[in-house]
Amino acid sequence: MKWIRYQHQGREGYGLLQGEHVQPCHGSPFGDHEPAGDPLALQAMRLLPPCQPRQIVGLWNNFRAAAEKNGWSAPAEPLWFLKSPHALAGPGDAIPVPRGEVGRVAYEGELVIVIGRRTEAVSVEQAAAHILGYTCGNDVTAIELLPRDPAFAQWSRAKSLPGFAAFGPVIETDFDAAAASVRTRAGGRERQHYALADMFFPPHELVSRLSQDLILEAGDLIYCGTSLGVLPMKPGTTVEVEIDGIGSLVNTYGG
Amino acid sequence: MKWIRYQHQGREGYGLLQGEHVQPCHGSPFGDHEPAGDPLALQAMRLLPPCQPRQIVGLWNNFRAAAEKNGWSAPAEPLWFLKSPHALAGPGDAIPVPRGEVGRVAYEGELVIVIGRRTEAVSVEQAAAHILGYTCGNDVTAIELLPRDPAFAQWSRAKSLPGFAAFGPVIETDFDAAAASVRTRAGGRERQHYALADMFFPPHELVSRLSQDLILEAGDLIYCGTSLGVLPMKPGTTVEVEIDGIGSLVNTYGG
Repeated sequence: MKWIRYQHQGREGYGLLQGEHVQPCHGSPFGDHEPAGDPLALQAMRLLPPCQPRQIVGLWNNFRAAAEKNGWSAPAEPLWFLKSPHALAGPGDAIPVPRGEVGRVAYEGELVIVIGRRTEAVSVEQAAAHILGYTCGNDVTAIELLPRDPAFAQWSRAKSLPGFAAFGPVIETDFDAAAASVRTRAGGRERQHYALADMFFPPHELVSRLSQDLILEAGDLIYCGTSLGVLPMKPGTTVEVEIDGIGSLVNTYGG
Repeated sequence: MKWIRYQHQGREGYGLLQGEHVQPCHGSPFGDHEPAGDPLALQAMRLLPPCQPRQIVGLWNNFRAAAEKNGWSAPAEPLWFLKSPHALAGPGDAIPVPRGEVGRVAYEGELVIVIGRRTEAVSVEQAAAHILGYTCGNDVTAIELLPRDPAFAQWSRAKSLPGFAAFGPVIETDFDAAAASVRTRAGGRERQHYALADMFFPPHELVSRLSQDLILEAGDLIYCGTSLGVLPMKPGTTVEVEIDGIGSLVNTYGG
């Protein structure tokens, strides 16, 4: 199933994407829900971020190819930071050019895990039942701001400017990360194309490991980290993050 | 005014602390509100965390005395990380001993700013109108986990274990940080006693600077950083963070 959130004639809600139509639903994918009313044309609605996370986790150094190229050691455990829940951008939303002097801004095309319910200290085997589904993400990063202070890497700040947590367009509940790949196109040119099988910590293991220390709740996101091909964006650049079986997330930087 | 959140006979709500009594209120301090019903005895209720933040910011290296002693340079800008909104502990709540192998855990007594409304790119002069008030905080930290990976300082993780974001007991709306000090007692012994006037970035400047990059919303917290006297806690240690004019936050580690 492909869950979306939409705005249509002043109303917001969850729905199920069925080809070019959306079946509106009462409730939410995180609790009771049922179809409500007739299907609506996808093109008549505005797509919103497909859920409303309170917590957003991002991963560093989770792909072997990137670690090898950059000379990073294999991590002994998932290395993560938090992104602001106020930095969301949905499908088609512009990602604003920062108003301050933060330097260059890069895209990072990523797989994103959407947590389905409260998750605390679960095993790898239990993790699947705690994941609602998967979506595409652009973990936008102010790459010069991040290392600007020599004593303190500004991970949360560099990843949390308005619009820097782009995700969507749908939450796909039937998805096999081991078989899929991520493609990122910037200005129409393919810049990233990597297999999700290359992760040091694949999704079920990530959820299990993170949940030993960190409480996860319904709607929380885990950006799984990126691989090779990250580049800064010029204002006006459209970035598309496509994952087989999920769809394409398209945002324009400063657009 | 001193805002609290409480639980009483199965109901939760906001109220105003008046000596040994609480005036229950309809609504919240972040929007319309009005007194509702008769005052209740403080001792008949359970105090909850005084608001429900979606975003929690913590500061590193914001006190001159700590920077001097530790040999840290004065920061050119506020250096911050995000803590999990699922790691809250309210007044009197136990802070659980982590179940994993994370090493020693330390208290950090701090002043906490409570944001009153959406705040984006405000000036220092505008900041006061965006602050609802102030409370006491214990920015609990897994001090050995934080630097455990040589390539990536795990700030968000070390600060986000369950119960590691303790705050309360009240949100004081009339408070002058420049005139107050923080005292932290661990196991009854005073371990921290520092003046809030020693901050590199005092509250109005912090809110203004952070808001240039980071959207702040009603109920968000900013832990202002700590000064000298941080020590690890043994399980069973009661920690009290007291700020003149606000009150005392008391939590027991593993209690």
